[in-house]
Amino acid sequence: MRVHVAFTPREAERVPTAVVVDVLRATSTIAQALDAGYRRVLCCAEIEDALALRERLGEGVLAGERLTVAVPGFDLGNSPREFLEPRGETLILSTTNGTRAIVAAAANADTVLVGSLLNLAAVAAAARERGGDVEIVCAGVEGRFTLDDAYCAGRIAGLVGGERSDAAEAAVRLAGSFASPLEGLRASENPFHEQLGEDLEWCARESVLAVVPRLAGRNGAAAEIVA
Amino acid sequence: MRVHVAFTPREAERVPTAVVVDVLRATSTIAQALDAGYRRVLCCAEIEDALALRERLGEGVLAGERLTVAVPGFDLGNSPREFLEPRGETLILSTTNGTRAIVAAAANADTVLVGSLLNLAAVAAAARERGGDVEIVCAGVEGRFTLDDAYCAGRIAGLVGGERSDAAEAAVRLAGSFASPLEGLRASENPFHEQLGEDLEWCARESVLAVVPRLAGRNGAAAEIVA
Repeated sequence: MRVHVAFTPREAERVPTAVVVDVLRATSTIAQALDAGYRRVLCCAEIEDALALRERLGEGVLAGERLTVAVPGFDLGNSPREFLEPRGETLILSTTNGTRAIVAAAANADTVLVGSLLNLAAVAAAARERGGDVEIVCAGVEGRFTLDDAYCAGRIAGLVGGERSDAAEAAVRLAGSFASPLEGLRASENPFHEQLGEDLEWCARESVLAVVPRLAGRNGAAAEIVA
Repeated sequence: MRVHVAFTPREAERVPTAVVVDVLRATSTIAQALDAGYRRVLCCAEIEDALALRERLGEGVLAGERLTVAVPGFDLGNSPREFLEPRGETLILSTTNGTRAIVAAAANADTVLVGSLLNLAAVAAAARERGGDVEIVCAGVEGRFTLDDAYCAGRIAGLVGGERSDAAEAAVRLAGSFASPLEGLRASENPFHEQLGEDLEWCARESVLAVVPRLAGRNGAAAEIVA
């Protein structure tokens, strides 16, 4: 078994199992929401798609952000701390980078899992147990490399085991250069991180959720994620 | 001043100064050849371009490789140890990844320098002295991340100084995780590395050349590199 890391979504290769990471904050939020009791999360790349989907379904809690700012008319933002109690069965989530990475990964992998530090041990075990090659796909920011996602990818790659690609080895070594997850997430120069407040510490907690979100299929323009 | 690293050529951004790295072996060979006394290196992406260029110029030592194998009809391969004495004024070099990265970088930067471990201190000083933002562009292999180029990029980024992008910070940390340059170059899983023999140790030597190869312009389909 081989483990590989795509530092940006466009580097993603054809693999049996992909693990998508947008640790600040989309994939942390998805894990938190499904763990809390939402039955499914419908991920939309565009705000318009999210609005149209709720119209079509006649249900759904609308959540998301653009550049860390909540979307006008939406019920919730993209802070995982807003998803500790479900407000319905269906969450419709639109975020800047994470959703797009999930949709992109779905085109290249048979199984798409959703990874974060919150479900670190669980998602790594699930990826390993599938037996085939694993690729961890970092969402990045606007297609660019980010330290926070690369850190999280390195932690997952280290736990998945198997033979490492050059990028996986680099991610594992990078993760090992930080004294703590919080240091790893804080190292990014992303200017929006200053606006994340306590979410940064929240998302830096390791293996506190056992949930393994996975892509169930498409629902119109959305990717449907279930536990 | 900011320093950035593009782990693959297609991540390259618009910057004043780019430093292209294909440490095994094209950029090491270019530095070695110019230091030895070749007046210019004409880099061609395609073998056919190299052959046509010598035909047109009526001169030039033809050198290069495809997948580490010498090209039939060429005078020399792509081992830097073949370039310790000049066999003429003009070297026409075609290599798998390095040449393509130089040609690609030229589209995005005002100044393109050629970096390796052999000229580590010299190329970092030259990039820093230009004063503007610096991007170190890794050639990679077939557009993919490779540990050897990322290691070399991290060493250069650390010496250039300035404010680091996320990718530059990652490269510096990655480089710091290896005990020696040779360990950094050997860590790559590139199967062709086994065929490099003593070139690997040769290219792992640090700051033994003072030459700073730079792109002078285009010459037909070739990029003309001078000292």
